[in-house]
Amino acid sequence: MKALVYLGPGKKALQERPKPDITAPTDVIVKITKTTICGTDLHILKGDVPSCQPGRILGHEGVGIVDTAGPAVTAFKPGDRVVISCISACGKCVYCRKLMYSHCTTGGWILGNRIDGTQAEFVRIPFGDTSLYGIPDGADEEALVMLSDILPTGFECGVLNGKVQPGSTVAIVGAGPIGLATLLTAQFYSPAEIIMIDLDDNRLEVAKRFGATAAINSADGQARETVMKMTGKRGVDTVIEAVGIPATFELCEKIVAPGGTIANIGVHGTKVALHLEQLWDRNITITTRLVDTVSTPMLLNILRSHKFDPKLLITHRFKLDRILDAYETFANAANTRALKVVIEA
Amino acid sequence: MKALVYLGPGKKALQERPKPDITAPTDVIVKITKTTICGTDLHILKGDVPSCQPGRILGHEGVGIVDTAGPAVTAFKPGDRVVISCISACGKCVYCRKLMYSHCTTGGWILGNRIDGTQAEFVRIPFGDTSLYGIPDGADEEALVMLSDILPTGFECGVLNGKVQPGSTVAIVGAGPIGLATLLTAQFYSPAEIIMIDLDDNRLEVAKRFGATAAINSADGQARETVMKMTGKRGVDTVIEAVGIPATFELCEKIVAPGGTIANIGVHGTKVALHLEQLWDRNITITTRLVDTVSTPMLLNILRSHKFDPKLLITHRFKLDRILDAYETFANAANTRALKVVIEA
Amino acid sequence: MKALVYLGPGKKALQERPKPDITAPTDVIVKITKTTICGTDLHILKGDVPSCQPGRILGHEGVGIVDTAGPAVTAFKPGDRVVISCISACGKCVYCRKLMYSHCTTGGWILGNRIDGTQAEFVRIPFGDTSLYGIPDGADEEALVMLSDILPTGFECGVLNGKVQPGSTVAIVGAGPIGLATLLTAQFYSPAEIIMIDLDDNRLEVAKRFGATAAINSADGQARETVMKMTGKRGVDTVIEAVGIPATFELCEKIVAPGGTIANIGVHGTKVALHLEQLWDRNITITTRLVDTVSTPMLLNILRSHKFDPKLLITHRFKLDRILDAYETFANAANTRALKVVIEA
Amino acid sequence: MKALVYLGPGKKALQERPKPDITAPTDVIVKITKTTICGTDLHILKGDVPSCQPGRILGHEGVGIVDTAGPAVTAFKPGDRVVISCISACGKCVYCRKLMYSHCTTGGWILGNRIDGTQAEFVRIPFGDTSLYGIPDGADEEALVMLSDILPTGFECGVLNGKVQPGSTVAIVGAGPIGLATLLTAQFYSPAEIIMIDLDDNRLEVAKRFGATAAINSADGQARETVMKMTGKRGVDTVIEAVGIPATFELCEKIVAPGGTIANIGVHGTKVALHLEQLWDRNITITTRLVDTVSTPMLLNILRSHKFDPKLLITHRFKLDRILDAYETFANAANTRALKVVIEA
Repeated sequence: MKALVYLGPGKKALQERPKPDITAPTDVIVKITKTTICGTDLHILKGDVPSCQPGRILGHEGVGIVDTAGPAVTAFKPGDRVVISCISACGKCVYCRKLMYSHCTTGGWILGNRIDGTQAEFVRIPFGDTSLYGIPDGADEEALVMLSDILPTGFECGVLNGKVQPGSTVAIVGAGPIGLATLLTAQFYSPAEIIMIDLDDNRLEVAKRFGATAAINSADGQARETVMKMTGKRGVDTVIEAVGIPATFELCEKIVAPGGTIANIGVHGTKVALHLEQLWDRNITITTRLVDTVSTPMLLNILRSHKFDPKLLITHRFKLDRILDAYETFANAANTRALKVVIEA
Repeated sequence: MKALVYLGPGKKALQERPKPDITAPTDVIVKITKTTICGTDLHILKGDVPSCQPGRILGHEGVGIVDTAGPAVTAFKPGDRVVISCISACGKCVYCRKLMYSHCTTGGWILGNRIDGTQAEFVRIPFGDTSLYGIPDGADEEALVMLSDILPTGFECGVLNGKVQPGSTVAIVGAGPIGLATLLTAQFYSPAEIIMIDLDDNRLEVAKRFGATAAINSADGQARETVMKMTGKRGVDTVIEAVGIPATFELCEKIVAPGGTIANIGVHGTKVALHLEQLWDRNITITTRLVDTVSTPMLLNILRSHKFDPKLLITHRFKLDRILDAYETFANAANTRALKVVIEA
Repeated sequence: MKALVYLGPGKKALQERPKPDITAPTDVIVKITKTTICGTDLHILKGDVPSCQPGRILGHEGVGIVDTAGPAVTAFKPGDRVVISCISACGKCVYCRKLMYSHCTTGGWILGNRIDGTQAEFVRIPFGDTSLYGIPDGADEEALVMLSDILPTGFECGVLNGKVQPGSTVAIVGAGPIGLATLLTAQFYSPAEIIMIDLDDNRLEVAKRFGATAAINSADGQARETVMKMTGKRGVDTVIEAVGIPATFELCEKIVAPGGTIANIGVHGTKVALHLEQLWDRNITITTRLVDTVSTPMLLNILRSHKFDPKLLITHRFKLDRILDAYETFANAANTRALKVVIEA
Repeated sequence: MKALVYLGPGKKALQERPKPDITAPTDVIVKITKTTICGTDLHILKGDVPSCQPGRILGHEGVGIVDTAGPAVTAFKPGDRVVISCISACGKCVYCRKLMYSHCTTGGWILGNRIDGTQAEFVRIPFGDTSLYGIPDGADEEALVMLSDILPTGFECGVLNGKVQPGSTVAIVGAGPIGLATLLTAQFYSPAEIIMIDLDDNRLEVAKRFGATAAINSADGQARETVMKMTGKRGVDTVIEAVGIPATFELCEKIVAPGGTIANIGVHGTKVALHLEQLWDRNITITTRLVDTVSTPMLLNILRSHKFDPKLLITHRFKLDRILDAYETFANAANTRALKVVIEA
């Protein structure tokens, strides 16, 4: 089968690889119909993710059709259409029993990282019963690709951890794909204000179309002042960090209201300064989270009710044999205005 | 009346001052019977608290008897015995309406800071109805002095924010008075383990008497390794920072388990390093809080049921005219082994 | 001044009454600009509410302008435009300190019940600082009349108590004004389905316009079967009772899913049968609540953000001197199709 | 092997039966070392549980040693010592994914009910990985038998659902084994008062030894008045129903404070009267629950820390071949003063 293979820092290729086999009774082999590329895949290609070794098929998102199911699989059978979760969950360990699938002792984020991933014609999904979700007939497959990772990540790490509430004030720092996914799902809770902060006017324009009530280009270094003016000097109830660098995290510290929450989504490569000398008495909460994908059933329900449209996030489409172009397009988002690119296998 | 007055960095004196008057219809004048000294009073004396200006009577803790009540006061009358909350709450502003009295727009921590405090024969308490608590006949006044600040602070900022649960594992970094108050109140939730970490063997010994299940002297730089060994490499569910310096906060970051909480109590004078490069995917929560004293009624109920003994925290007793000795004793805790010193007015 | 006065079961009149005076330092006299009639007023007129004695001015909803403020009032001054809460809260008692204003020991629902109410040119509001809410300039007064009672009641007793969640399934039994107010506010949480159940096709039609995803006329006695068919035999996550009779409450018991919640809003005059022989092992929750109006600030924020339109509930408008016609119209809703009638003073 | 078999209403026998076999890859065969009898077993013997048909081996509690493990079992191997949960959880269905194991679509309470149970030398446990819990070396097996059902039932259905809090007031109606198990676990949260209500002075005496702060014999019909006197006319924050008849449930309705919770544990055979005409405006919560046994890991942690002693519940011990005597003793608790009887296999 064809597969996009990581070959070491800066190197990747579309290669021919053997179709995967069932290796444990709980495995499911899925024939991929659609997959996508995540910012994390770009991190791997830079060599930033040591757990992912050369030779690995990349990708942890996708929808497809069950090809084979191991003997202990009870929820799925060949022919079933499924969404693949980016998180593999054994369903039995101490973390899975607390619904913290991200830290599953034998799973977690392993797809396209410690085991071969979804940017291929077939993929082996361990713990199929607890790592796949059935697709109702007639559902839009493209929309569902957004449920593998980006929507649960924005919703769980940003919206749920950030305790977004009806009538509350939210700021999202970073209007990239994950920031925009957070913006879409934050609206499930009807906050009164969602302020989007970024350096790219195009993305801020997109954010306004997606429902942001205000957009701030922070290039002038005045983001804090602008937010304080907008909120009567109080700051915002929920600040969501969707970039992953010290400057943006520190901006979050400056604009959170007393009693508010900073929910971190960004993947950070270095420490940040936490100004406890200013924050120790402000009654704030800071959260971090690798997505658990526990909200996937809830998101499927909302999708079914047509309360929001995940396809808004999809800007480009490619066939699998043109996946290198897809990477090129996704990596140059500032020029291509790419958000999510869908790859059809 | 006699009062302990702050006279600028490094300077204080017991002076004669006029008895305070009612200035607003919600004021209550309280005749102090017992008060105490807080670590924050020492901070003021170092000049670290700019909101507290020379000439201020110090002190924000105490019990006493209502001397006069303003015309809008309905809950108290002269002669009533009361506990004074360290936080003054108007009961009406946006923060008070969210039970976040610490950020009351006209109150908060003002006693012995922005207005004259309790280390005196009389004190004016603004918003008396919502800043004082009645004492049942026969209750032990000394125990109740601990309810003004130290017990609600340990309980709210440490135990409640830290989400201590039956069967959970807790570490408290810092075995000073506030760490020990946290230790006492953490036991309301029956955690399986409470590990106390400090540099002072005497205080660790006290912690064991107060219910700690393990004590670690971190002087050898091996605290992290010791905690990891004790917890099967998992770390602890709740880490409570009760010191207020970068080294101790960073230790908290190292020993918190995935999914765990770091609850900060310490008053920090400088920023700390937050290692998001290690913590971004660990699903942790960090909280800060100035005590709201919303738990005071709950603590009074528990006290009434004799489930714990706050008097364990009291090591020394002085008359008001010897308050300078009390300060001396409290400030030299390493030698005097002082925890809380009670001053009788 | 003119006032609508209860004169005993079945009797009321528009009478001339003296303008009220300040009687406590926390009182505020409000000049009413708009008020409305509640189903509870009809109950009083039937003689069902013994706490309300003949001679009482009715009404517990309205907006107006501050005429006079007692000396202890700090949040409002003459000329301020205000929403009147149907619940008077002292802000100090054990219940107010738990944000359970409905059970305020000296307040609660007293307006138009134990003390004179809002269906008059002026009204005395006790505890003005904690029982009135400021209106921003430019806000629509008619919409705000809905914030006195009906919207917080639907939201707190139905939506919050019912734990409505994104993607969840909700049934509301009763499509009268309160059921429809619940329907409007349930949408703040983006449930996937809201099933409205009533006997009146007109009201069900209104419900669909207001956002219900399904409507069931229960006249055929098949409501349970229909709901079970719609939900794959599972039942609904949240059932909200908005009628107040045994038959509707028992319907709720039959359609709640395992793990679900029945949130009662209805005012019941008699006991109901609780089928614990069927429900003891179903992991359900049943809640009752008199509105606390703690959500009023949140509702004002959402209103300001134009996320919903409370004026949808208003069907008729009258001048105060035609209030008897307003009562007639409201009491004959089946014919007049009245939801809320606004009375302009 | 020997097994206690239900033979239809009123009939049971100790019979020779074949040792069970693995029938699914997730099955585990456990050699029972200790089991016990539950009140539910007596219900079955009365013919009250139609899902349990004649020929069934009874029992859903016990500890033992893994004899054989199916090929998909990863958490346990032959020789491992285990606690058996009374609830079998597949770990994959919609309810298990919400931690509501009681309603597992292929499990739930099936042991000794729909499939053969634990009052035998061997038992087949379906979904072994998610229905068994490992026992640490050196743990007391008798104490652990109490973790199969009675302790998680009291804790989850009574204490957690009842929201017992530090300083709160609790009443437990029914001082039988389950009421006493609730009493033991309620103390994990340090309530200020635990009032035990029963008709049997002996059991009330036991309750006081187990930590009840007050005991009321309700034989005189004055229980309500007594509770109201004890609580300053307010009622109790949490009332736990541990009997299962209308009279006791209605007593709960009468003594719950405004804002309080009635947590039902009792197995009810008939409907009860819910006095909504008195409760509709009292802001109360009523919960029902079949135990989910999600708290078993937490209870194991607390047990390990020696915070409580489940063996207090054990009054009698029998060998398996004398299990008919054990039933006799347990069924005549009023005379034998039996709480839990342990049967050694």
